[in-house]
Amino acid sequence: MTAVRRGRPGYDLPGLLAKSVTIFNERGFDGTSMEDLSAGLGISKAAIYHHVKGKDALLGLALDHALVGLEAAAEEVRALDGPAVDRLEVLVRRSVEVLVDRLSYVTLLLRVRGNSTVERRALARRRHLDQLVADLVKEAVTEGDLHPDIDPSVTARLLFGMVNSLTEWLKPTHQHNVDELVHVVSTMAFDGLRRTGSTR
Amino acid sequence: MTAVRRGRPGYDLPGLLAKSVTIFNERGFDGTSMEDLSAGLGISKAAIYHHVKGKDALLGLALDHALVGLEAAAEEVRALDGPAVDRLEVLVRRSVEVLVDRLSYVTLLLRVRGNSTVERRALARRRHLDQLVADLVKEAVTEGDLHPDIDPSVTARLLFGMVNSLTEWLKPTHQHNVDELVHVVSTMAFDGLRRTGSTR
Repeated sequence: MTAVRRGRPGYDLPGLLAKSVTIFNERGFDGTSMEDLSAGLGISKAAIYHHVKGKDALLGLALDHALVGLEAAAEEVRALDGPAVDRLEVLVRRSVEVLVDRLSYVTLLLRVRGNSTVERRALARRRHLDQLVADLVKEAVTEGDLHPDIDPSVTARLLFGMVNSLTEWLKPTHQHNVDELVHVVSTMAFDGLRRTGSTR
Repeated sequence: MTAVRRGRPGYDLPGLLAKSVTIFNERGFDGTSMEDLSAGLGISKAAIYHHVKGKDALLGLALDHALVGLEAAAEEVRALDGPAVDRLEVLVRRSVEVLVDRLSYVTLLLRVRGNSTVERRALARRRHLDQLVADLVKEAVTEGDLHPDIDPSVTARLLFGMVNSLTEWLKPTHQHNVDELVHVVSTMAFDGLRRTGSTR
């Protein structure tokens, strides 16, 4: 997959980052060399080094962009009052919004396996976010609003497993209806697919 | 990550495959060279070539093992009578069972992006399975058993997005309680997390 060079397009750092993240997602981060980036971006390696120290620095910036968005959503929810189940639902909504807004960055984040210091730092920040979800689920069970007989930590993982699975099929180029997505996720997770009053 | 060689362990093909899949999942398929496989398996490249033509052949066998399991579950569900919502629930249960039983193989399958003929064939078989899920959801909506106001294809994707997210955190070495996992997945998906009678 080598790009045809059309002269030398100029990039600012955010532009360089956005395009690099797309290339990382297509080829896998570990499978992307500086040569691949250079070919994909249509600029020389020297021009890339003008912006960043290398591949790992680009990955660090990209993961940070995803994490800052998700952490802001978490902070917002931490500041709320009210029943934990409602705060959990707000967290689901805000997370879907961030995921759609920063789709390729969150996609990259979710594929990180901890192969480098940059990746391990990102995983540590993800674990912090996961902990908030698990705490909210536990609190909501204690408050009597969630099924008491299902394991809170498994529930938390599955709930955000469902949310994160959006990255598997949403298209970065498409204008997604966030409200519709949030509606389906929330309906399935909190009210269940089965129609109330169904006799089955 | 180079393995210490402890002499030359013998492998039959299933054993070679199982260990190779673990290595692929750790390093990423594209990031794994024949040298890496040789080091990880503790046998020479020639000894690997004795069993298979190369990396791609191993990938093909591994993906087939995952797909045959999932397809058998689908065939079983296709042969059932009864309401679509019940058949959908059986499909969820059987899929979780296959996923736990063939965890590292399904994990590898879910990371495939279509970078080669082997990968594209696997993706085509996955799409067939996804179509069965989408059809069951539509049928269940028509039969009046599922919420009619949520998009069936989005619902199908999210439902199996939740199921497949199990591969993100289940441990291949751990003995998992499949019934408990199926219970949480089914409760969340079909009945919802919110406790019936909760006043919120």
